Amino acid sequence: MDVISIIRTKRDGGALSDAQIDWVVAAYTAGEVADEQMSALAMAILLNGMERREIARWTAAMIASGERMDFRALSRPTVDKHSTGGVGDKITLPLAPLVAACGAAVPQLSGRGLGHTGGTLDKLESIPGWRAGLDNAEMLRVLDEVGAVVCAAGEGLAPADRKLYALRDVTGTVESLPLIASSIMSKKIAEGTGSLVLDVKVGSGAFMKTLDDARALAETMVGLGTDHGVRTVALLTDMSTPLGRTAGNALEVAESVEVLAGGGPRDVVDLTLALAREMLDAAGLPDADPERALADGSAMDHWRRMIAAQGGDPDAPLPTARERHVVPAPASGVLATLDAYAVGLAAWRLGAGRARKEEGVQAAAGVELHAKPGESVVEGAPLVTLHTDTPERFEAALEALAGEAIRVVPADAADDGTGTPPPPTVLDRIA
Amino acid sequence: MDVISIIRTKRDGGALSDAQIDWVVAAYTAGEVADEQMSALAMAILLNGMERREIARWTAAMIASGERMDFRALSRPTVDKHSTGGVGDKITLPLAPLVAACGAAVPQLSGRGLGHTGGTLDKLESIPGWRAGLDNAEMLRVLDEVGAVVCAAGEGLAPADRKLYALRDVTGTVESLPLIASSIMSKKIAEGTGSLVLDVKVGSGAFMKTLDDARALAETMVGLGTDHGVRTVALLTDMSTPLGRTAGNALEVAESVEVLAGGGPRDVVDLTLALAREMLDAAGLPDADPERALADGSAMDHWRRMIAAQGGDPDAPLPTARERHVVPAPASGVLATLDAYAVGLAAWRLGAGRARKEEGVQAAAGVELHAKPGESVVEGAPLVTLHTDTPERFEAALEALAGEAIRVVPADAADDGTGTPPPPTVLDRIA
Repeated sequence: MDVISIIRTKRDGGALSDAQIDWVVAAYTAGEVADEQMSALAMAILLNGMERREIARWTAAMIASGERMDFRALSRPTVDKHSTGGVGDKITLPLAPLVAACGAAVPQLSGRGLGHTGGTLDKLESIPGWRAGLDNAEMLRVLDEVGAVVCAAGEGLAPADRKLYALRDVTGTVESLPLIASSIMSKKIAEGTGSLVLDVKVGSGAFMKTLDDARALAETMVGLGTDHGVRTVALLTDMSTPLGRTAGNALEVAESVEVLAGGGPRDVVDLTLALAREMLDAAGLPDADPERALADGSAMDHWRRMIAAQGGDPDAPLPTARERHVVPAPASGVLATLDAYAVGLAAWRLGAGRARKEEGVQAAAGVELHAKPGESVVEGAPLVTLHTDTPERFEAALEALAGEAIRVVPADAADDGTGTPPPPTVLDRIA
Repeated sequence: MDVISIIRTKRDGGALSDAQIDWVVAAYTAGEVADEQMSALAMAILLNGMERREIARWTAAMIASGERMDFRALSRPTVDKHSTGGVGDKITLPLAPLVAACGAAVPQLSGRGLGHTGGTLDKLESIPGWRAGLDNAEMLRVLDEVGAVVCAAGEGLAPADRKLYALRDVTGTVESLPLIASSIMSKKIAEGTGSLVLDVKVGSGAFMKTLDDARALAETMVGLGTDHGVRTVALLTDMSTPLGRTAGNALEVAESVEVLAGGGPRDVVDLTLALAREMLDAAGLPDADPERALADGSAMDHWRRMIAAQGGDPDAPLPTARERHVVPAPASGVLATLDAYAVGLAAWRLGAGRARKEEGVQAAAGVELHAKPGESVVEGAPLVTLHTDTPERFEAALEALAGEAIRVVPADAADDGTGTPPPPTVLDRIA
């Protein structure tokens, strides 16, 4: 086996053999295949694709690169959720304690920011004291005591994926169906969850831009999960505009707490409840009532315990950015477009995401939206506020929001279809 | 400017702007763009190509990454030769002293092994004492005193290319017209040669497999040279079977010395003379007689002085491999095929080339051919001898030579076209 032959096989449009996949994943994990070799292979996979057999084998090889966890000793059924990543997608934050409050156990192993989408761990780390790293015993303890834990995957879990995930982030090789599907499912299968609900995003702010691509990804992942004995369901949800009214780490934590307090933007609340119902159903708790758990404060109570269990202070003030820049509405009328990708890119450029895997992120950087598509705006009134600690970043963020990213149409145009209302949040369900 | 946007532009089939090219080449040279990012970009360039403007700009950016040399103070005209790389291509070794013996100065900045083709410096380093690294002053002194110098490009010359060349070698991104053309021409233009003869290889053992691809590469490079004031001519030459009877570092040095002594394989002698005539013509010395310089020993005299000037002992015995393995002819008849790529791959696997840029090469490893296509062979008699210090490599080398790599046809089949005689060495000329 040599890595260059493997790269060339995929580069020239061939399929990798099972033996080639097993070898290259193991050798990369062991450091015998270098980052620059794996990134070339990842680009060749992105451009030339993989067959279903290759994806299944690649996933199995990543699972085999590390340990597998087992939650069967817990008294409660386990169910996890995974989102393919969107702009302003803070759903895990209210969802995990909500589902825990309804009686399931949620072992949520999460990642960091990937490209223009934020990472759940980056968001939670904006809470003073909160730490993402738990060993397996700590994780099990929090899961058992609180019913929900959001933490970094342990060193031992699918190490091949952890290494590859960080590499793809900085090499322009994120947007590949085989790499996305195998990355997500290897972690979730190795994690040992009994059931899994996938939130597959569709639209400009998602990795999958079309419903067809998203459906293909969802079907691939549901197949991988089912093959490994994990009850898996996928919702396809809209990501043409950001979820909620914030994109950025601390900004999204604040919005999540609003949802847990019974408020928050309608789309965030709706999607949180839709996913909670799927998770509770998959966990064998179809009679649980997540709407009541939000209303009666039990979800908030679980949030506070979950944050405190990992060293976070749920009452501490969240960090705020040193500098702000307000973008006014360009005209009066109805906001027709507020493009998810543009907002994600702006937040990334403001410092909410990273350009190299070694970099940190700014806790307080991000974008705050004062209106959502379908809402009325007044010329000159604040439409978007940019937050950053490093004001030299404003210019690049403003560039991201230029052009067609923000579009206001006359109020009467909203009636004739020009100002098309945003699509419903849940577009399809695959099981 | 951020590198991920640049990678994505090329990945998605776009053209890079002049500013993007200038920035990414400079940032990679400075270490601000990581190896794993550049290799992903290189793979995207390989798969999605570059426009003529992009290639010209990329070349200029690589030249601008370092210093430019100037040989106009020399009393003799300078002319250099570059081969795109083939199996058994040791032509530089006899050619440089031969052209020097005829009155031109040959500043031959060479590289190390790239993929399955050997590197001139790796070959010369098998001569005890010989060293590739000279500073600019030493290089000029040898060039002035001997008339020929073969050495590593100085640290200051096109550093972007040096870094990228080593990276491509280990990431499966060698075989790309834009990357090959810009790599070769940036070094040659920065080196400051007055004229240049390109030996563009065509066939299974070359990076360009077809005459059309080779012609496209030659035309691109002749255009780049001419644009920068370097008189540039290209010969397209056959690489369907190895040049000469050896592939491997010390083995090729020994064969080169045979040529300088007035013997050696016919194809090596013919190509050496054809390139010498082109070089002397380009240097303004059309009346020089390279055939006489081979016959009268003056080429050999220049070789000995050239080797000694860089610390080498031209009389020292060359290293020999600890282990040999003989491959017998599979049948009696005429050798119809001895595939260049297969032989190159076998030599590489025996240790003559490297799989990672940090690795060294074995001086004595390689493949020795006892017959060439068109020659008669007898079943069971030695056809190929494999040389290596590490016999566990024999198996992989033998695999490379299996299948259609070696083909013997009955003697009478040679007459009816089944045993097609090898094509002429020089296939076309582009100026």
